[in-house]
Parts: sequence; structure tokens; C-alpha cells
Amino acid sequence: MGKEITKRETDYSQWYNDIILKAGLADYSAVRGCMVIKPYGFALWENMRDQLDKMFKETGHQNAYFPLFIPKSFLSKEAAHVEGFAKECAVVTHYRLMNDPDGGGIVVDPDAKLEEELIVRPTSETIIWNTYKTWIQSYRDLPILVNQWANVVRWEMRTRLFLRTTEFLWQEGHTAHATSQEAIDETKLILDVYATFAEEWMSLPVVKGVKSISERFAGAVDTYCIEALMQDGKALQSGTSHYLGQNFAKAFDVQFTDKENKLDYVWASSWGVSTRLIGALVMAHSDDDGLVLPPKIAPIQVVIVPIYKGDEQKKMIDEKVKMFMEDFKALGVKVKYDDNDNNRPGWKFAEYELKGVPVRIAIGARDIQNNVVEVARRDTKEKTSVSIDGLANTVAVLLNDIQQNIYTKAKNFRDEHIAKADTWDEFEKLLDSKGGFISAHWDGTAETEEKIKELTKATIRCIPLNNLQEEGKCILTGKPSKERVLFARAY
Amino acid sequence: MGKEITKRETDYSQWYNDIILKAGLADYSAVRGCMVIKPYGFALWENMRDQLDKMFKETGHQNAYFPLFIPKSFLSKEAAHVEGFAKECAVVTHYRLMNDPDGGGIVVDPDAKLEEELIVRPTSETIIWNTYKTWIQSYRDLPILVNQWANVVRWEMRTRLFLRTTEFLWQEGHTAHATSQEAIDETKLILDVYATFAEEWMSLPVVKGVKSISERFAGAVDTYCIEALMQDGKALQSGTSHYLGQNFAKAFDVQFTDKENKLDYVWASSWGVSTRLIGALVMAHSDDDGLVLPPKIAPIQVVIVPIYKGDEQKKMIDEKVKMFMEDFKALGVKVKYDDNDNNRPGWKFAEYELKGVPVRIAIGARDIQNNVVEVARRDTKEKTSVSIDGLANTVAVLLNDIQQNIYTKAKNFRDEHIAKADTWDEFEKLLDSKGGFISAHWDGTAETEEKIKELTKATIRCIPLNNLQEEGKCILTGKPSKERVLFARAY
Ligand SMILES: [Zn+2]
Ligand SMILES: [Zn+2]
Repeated sequence: MGKEITKRETDYSQWYNDIILKAGLADYSAVRGCMVIKPYGFALWENMRDQLDKMFKETGHQNAYFPLFIPKSFLSKEAAHVEGFAKECAVVTHYRLMNDPDGGGIVVDPDAKLEEELIVRPTSETIIWNTYKTWIQSYRDLPILVNQWANVVRWEMRTRLFLRTTEFLWQEGHTAHATSQEAIDETKLILDVYATFAEEWMSLPVVKGVKSISERFAGAVDTYCIEALMQDGKALQSGTSHYLGQNFAKAFDVQFTDKENKLDYVWASSWGVSTRLIGALVMAHSDDDGLVLPPKIAPIQVVIVPIYKGDEQKKMIDEKVKMFMEDFKALGVKVKYDDNDNNRPGWKFAEYELKGVPVRIAIGARDIQNNVVEVARRDTKEKTSVSIDGLANTVAVLLNDIQQNIYTKAKNFRDEHIAKADTWDEFEKLLDSKGGFISAHWDGTAETEEKIKELTKATIRCIPLNNLQEEGKCILTGKPSKERVLFARAY
Repeated sequence: MGKEITKRETDYSQWYNDIILKAGLADYSAVRGCMVIKPYGFALWENMRDQLDKMFKETGHQNAYFPLFIPKSFLSKEAAHVEGFAKECAVVTHYRLMNDPDGGGIVVDPDAKLEEELIVRPTSETIIWNTYKTWIQSYRDLPILVNQWANVVRWEMRTRLFLRTTEFLWQEGHTAHATSQEAIDETKLILDVYATFAEEWMSLPVVKGVKSISERFAGAVDTYCIEALMQDGKALQSGTSHYLGQNFAKAFDVQFTDKENKLDYVWASSWGVSTRLIGALVMAHSDDDGLVLPPKIAPIQVVIVPIYKGDEQKKMIDEKVKMFMEDFKALGVKVKYDDNDNNRPGWKFAEYELKGVPVRIAIGARDIQNNVVEVARRDTKEKTSVSIDGLANTVAVLLNDIQQNIYTKAKNFRDEHIAKADTWDEFEKLLDSKGGFISAHWDGTAETEEKIKELTKATIRCIPLNNLQEEGKCILTGKPSKERVLFARAY
């Protein structure tokens, strides 16, 4: 089978890759740093995407689609932006191939060189603000609340499945507003949408905060983020929402006349989450037997495995299952009856455990006599005998319970791994013992932040929203500080 | 307003562009040949995509995602394939930009040249079959029924909004089978899905057929297609489904052991429809006042416009509308109440006509006294006074009627524009008078096909499925023929 998974204790990083490859979420591809998202992984992404999309639409956003390519000159119109993205981009320079006149197969046609190179979008602020210029004249054209689901490319040198790939899928919202306050409100609204999605759908507790200057998005005035904690004590940035001020409006000369007929530059936000969230999901909840999926986003919520000898027993089970399958479907439960003859029940049990299916129901001939089935939950591995009467309802309640339990477990872990450090010694010890978030004073300078990173690999994950204002001294320099920030080693 | 639309009679091509730009479906972009799909156009695409996706899933397909980039060497592994796609592709040659050492802004970093160039996928057979090689060992791994929704790039020299753009959105199905028959069945199953979708959802009558050799997909054994007729008498290929035989399995060495433990190459199909369908929709149904959308895929099915003087009347109307809005929503009707104060009713009427909203309801203070509203249907422009009692039900029935009527109208037009030609003279006269599909005998050679194209710009659109076998003589060469084929000028 080759389905054994490395244990977390043995090699956390290998455990992560094993789960993704063996549960069938994704595969490596022939293209450096790009992955193939397999059907099971994509079904998971679809569930996540559809829920997020619903939440965006409920908050007044619409989808649109902008070009994959960005003219090179656009990238450099916003000074900070080009610094952040020029170093890692895929550049299209030609538009035709030809047969090698020397017989060496097909080669790039030197006559088909583009006058201006095109960049495969690493993010779309520039091409979108160049378009918004033609859409916006007056305050009546505002706000624009647009999102797109798209692929983007960043030429990362070191890649990890889902966490950091050359191409990835994401959504990017790009909004335009008449006032600064409106743009800030939008930025925060989306941060709340992301946090609600992470906590209620992915069972993933997150800290909401704002980034330090050095960790800001290239071109933003402020970057808000949600930060989650993985089981190895490292943090993972799971979504960002940027207040862009008038930076892109100025770079692309997008002005509007306000109600008083005065010209002003437009205010902006942008925000995104990506397939990286799947990496977060795997690292936060899974165990040494495989994936553990929150029921609300699981492609299969319940799997039913028949256990039988001979056709007569099989037929009896089939009939029974057919009856309660209808009940499951009526309740909107995603249920699969796996009566594939090629695999034995034990193999199926391991397979669905590996795939993180929240509930497994085993049903045999004797069970039917007793009017019961065996229900196993993936999160706790508990097995119970459950009456067939009202089975679908019982399981629906159980699914909610599992959703909640996965969250509580992750929340408890996270809460146990937030600690205060008041000295450099404490800080280093915490990092090297249990990891997690460390709440510590910092003098507010980029130099100190950089030095802490060099010394410990820990970075400032965020300054939590509504942070307690508290006098203190920087753990590294001893200089005065007005609040603690959250440090962690991070993905 | 600048919302006037060129009449079809005056300039059909300009009429088409006017509708797309002024109804807010799409916009030109700064990138040559690429368009921006605006929120209204994208909402239309979402409805089409979601329905197709549902139909794919109901027929056993799953979604996945494969890399955007294809190594150059992959493209040339299938001989016919490279001929078809190498001439029009975007080539990534570098992966980094840098500041020009001579101070000329940012330039491509010459040190960041890729060892092997990457092609932005024009279609994904090659990268997918390279992946399938690792997924398939035995007949137990088959069939693979996978689809992906993706963007693709073909470097077209002459582009048209939706009909032919450098980048476009589409779905591409790629299936793998243990037998030739299974792959052929799959190819035809999908052709039926496409035809059903076109006819029942887009109200677009189509001819199902198979392509002549010269019009085949590069790498296919057989290309099946659906062909629709536009109002100017030109045909538009609206979807293709390819039986690939073992061509790609051989090119990528994908073999499997069958039930008898014998090694064989895997059999394949691939199939796709794209945002081009939106172009077909516009050209088939719209009129000189704008879009006409079939209710089943319209982003807004019903718009309600209040007509009032003063706040008191407005309040009374609001209350009434609130009541029947609930009924609409309960029936799943997509309804919008446009009580925006900035625009007058007459402006709104024209705007929603332009946008093709199937039903418009106008409601004034006197209407409420009479317990009626004015209902206008977009397709026929008929207006009727309808009782507020049971309004939602009445309108739901009307929406079905409109869906059917748009189809019937297009079907009648199409049927009136299929004609037989038995001589070259008839053939040319038909083409230059009413256009449409011309059913004529052809000697079966690529040379004659090419010559007819040179002389008339007409191409063989397809050999219809279940075509009548009938002896005859080629309209051009007079050589013997066993069946008629459908010719047309086409987009
Ligand atoms: Zn711990
Ligand atoms: Zn005609």
C-alpha cells in the first residue's frame, strides 16, 4: 500500500508531505515549484471557496476577472510594490515557437519578441487600478467592491506543497472608496470575514492583528492579518487584508469628483486568502493516522462501509443503507456508500481515516438484526453503537459536535502556546522549548525586529487588534515600549 | 449617457461590441488581446459555469487543477499537437526583474534565464498526460474522469471580445479509459451534455456533428462539435469534444495492465467550452436595444422599478414590494428592487433593457390602488397589467415562457437558414444572400475543402451525427459523394 505516514515526532515536515500525498490532496508536478491539486484536494478547496464566495457576496462584493498578464511598466508604477514583486516573477518575452532551422526540435522564434515584456501576475493591484481609472469619474461610481478568483505566480526559490508554491490559487479583493475611513472599514470587515471563516468553517482559531512595517504588503499603508498556530508551535499567516490608502490611485492617476465637486484620489483596499489555507488545515488538525477534516468543509462527511459474507448479506445491507441514505441526503449530509468489492473493510477504514472523513459507519448483517450500526468519529477515534432509527439525525448532531471539538482542541493548544516573555533569556527559552506565540515588548524599530529575526528566526506575527497598552522594555534592547507584540517562528 | 447601440443593419460587428461594452459585460484591457470581464458579465459566466459544473458532476466527473506552465519539450511530444499550438503561445523565458544598471527602470535580469522555457498552457493535454502516467498502472485506476476550470492563453493575431481573446476562461475535461469504446462513449456523452446545456439553458439550438480532418483538434482522432447559428447567418463553434485514441498515452508512455494482465496504452478524451459561449449568447439573441438573456442564466431575472412622487408614495410602494419580494425569493427567482434615487424610471427601463433582464415590473401608487403592476417582458417587449395577487407565481410561469420563446425564435431562425445546394452556383448564391448553414455534397478531400474556403470563406462546420447517407456529386469538383456536409461562413 505504501500508505504509512511518518509520525509527527519523527519528522514533522515529512509527516506533512506524507499526509498531502497519501490522502490524495495534491501531487508534485513536472514544473518546478508547481503542484497538481488532485480531485480530493480540489473538492476541499471548492468547499472552502464556495463558502468564502458566499460570505463575500453577502457583504456586497461581486466577482470579476482581470488579465493574467501585467505589462512590465505597470509593476514599477508604485515604488514599494515593484521592490516587493520584481524579484520573483515569471516573465513572458516571446509569443511564438518555431522549428529549429538546425534541426534541434522546437525553439523560441527570435522574431516573436514582445516589445514590452509581460509579467504573469503575482497579484493584480496594478492591472486593476489601471482599469479602475476608466471606471471611476465621480463619487457615484464608488464604492467598487470587486473580487476575483484566480491563479497567481511568484517565483519562490524554496517551495512546499500548498504552503508556498510557484503558482497558487487564491481570491484577491480590490475595492475603491470615496473616503479613507470607508476603505479602512472595508479592510477590517474582510479581516472579520476571514477570521469567521477560519474559526467557524475550518475550526482554526486565529489571532487578528496588524503587521509591523517590515512585514507589510508592498504598497500598503497597513496590512491586517489572521495568524494561526500549527502543531509544531510555528505560526502560519492565513489571510491578509491591506489598507492601501491612495498609493495605487496616485500611481495610476485615479481621481474622482466628490459630492462638493472637488477632485481627490480614490482610497483602496486589497485582500486575499489562498490554497495555503489547505496547508494550515492539514498542519493544525491532522494526526499520525492522517487528515482530520472539519465536517463543514469535508468533501465526504460520512462514509458507510458494509461488512458482509456473500451476496445475501450484501443485499440485505444494501437495502437498509438505501433507506437511511435518503435521510442523510434530506439533511444535506455528504454521504458516500463504499461497497467497492476490490477492497476489504479494514483497508477502507484506514483509507478514510487517512482522508480525514469525519464519521465512518460500519454495518454488518448482525447489526441489522440488532437495528444498530457502528459509528466511529475521526477526531477522537471513539466508536459507538447507534440505533438505525433516527440515524441521520444522530449523525448530523455528531457532525456539529466534531466541528466544535476540533476547534476546541486547536483553541486549547493555541492558548497553551501563547506565553509572555519579559527577558531575552525567557524569550529564547520559550522559543526553543514549546514554541508558539510569544507576547513581548519591542522597541518599535525595524532594526531590532531584524536583529531578533537573525538571532532566533522569530518574526513579529502581528500587533493584536485592541491590544492592551502597557509600558515595558524591549526584550532585546531594553528601550521603552508601549505594548507587547506577538512573536513566533513562522511558515 | 452614450448608451446608444449601433443597429445590426448598420454594422453588425459594431452592434456586437456596443452591446458587450455598454451592457457592462466586458472591457478592453491594457494587455493586447486580453479583456476584463466585468461583474455583470462574470455573474453571467458564473451561472453558466455552475450549471455546467453540476452536469459534469452528475455524470461522474470531478474537478482538479494542473499547472499553468508547460515545459516546452512537453508540447512537442505529440507531433500534430505541437503543429497546432506552437505558433500562438506565450513563452516564459526568465524568472526575475532587476533595476537597470544604466538607470533605465526595471529590466529582465539576464542571469535569471530558465534552462527550459515554459509555455503558458494553450490547453493541458500534455501536462495532464504527463501526470496521468504516475496515476495509472492498472485497469483498476481507470477511468479517470477529471475536469478543470482554468485560464488558457493562445496568442491570437486578431481578437474579438469573448469570441477570440488571447487569454480566455474555459473548462477542459481530460479522461482516461481502458477501452477505445469507453473513450468514444465519453466523448459523445459530453457532446450531449454540451448540446443540452446550449439548448435548455442558453436557449441556443445547435447542430451536433463531427469535424472534417482539416478542422480536427491537433492531436485528436475525431473531433465532435456543437455548431450554432448567429443572426448574421454565420456559424459559431460552441463546444468541442475530442476522441484522442491512444495518441497522448503513446506520446507520454502511459500504459496500464488490463484484466488479462496485458499491457496496453490508455484511451483518452478531452473536451471544452469557454467564455466564447457568451459571445454566442449575445449574437444569437440580442436586438437593437441590447442584450436578451435567457432567464435560466440571467444574473437578474426580474427587476422592479418604483414610480412615485414624494416620500409618501415611495413608502407605500416599498411596503408593497417588500411583501411580494419575499414570494419571489421563496420561488428562487433572482429579483432586484431598484429604488436608486439618482436615476429616473425611463433611464432605468432603458438600462435594464440594455442589460437583457428578462422581466421588468413597474409599480406606481395608482397601481397599488388597483392591486396591479405593469409587467414588461424583454424578449417580445409586451407589457401587461398583472394582479399583485399571486404575482410571483405569474412571473415564474412567464420566465419559463420567455426561456422557451427565445429558444423557439432562435430555432426558427436557424431552421430557416439551413438550405440545400446542389450546384456551385446555388451554393454561392445562398452564401451571399441569406448565409446560414448550407447542406451540400463534398468529395471528401482536404484539397476541395481548402479550395472552397479560398473561394467563398465558407468552411465545413460539421458532418451531422446520424447523417443521411445519400449518393451525390461534390458541388465544386463533381466527384462522387456519399453524404452531405454542413458548410457555413463562421466566427
Ligand atoms: Zn506544546
Ligand atoms: Zn435571414
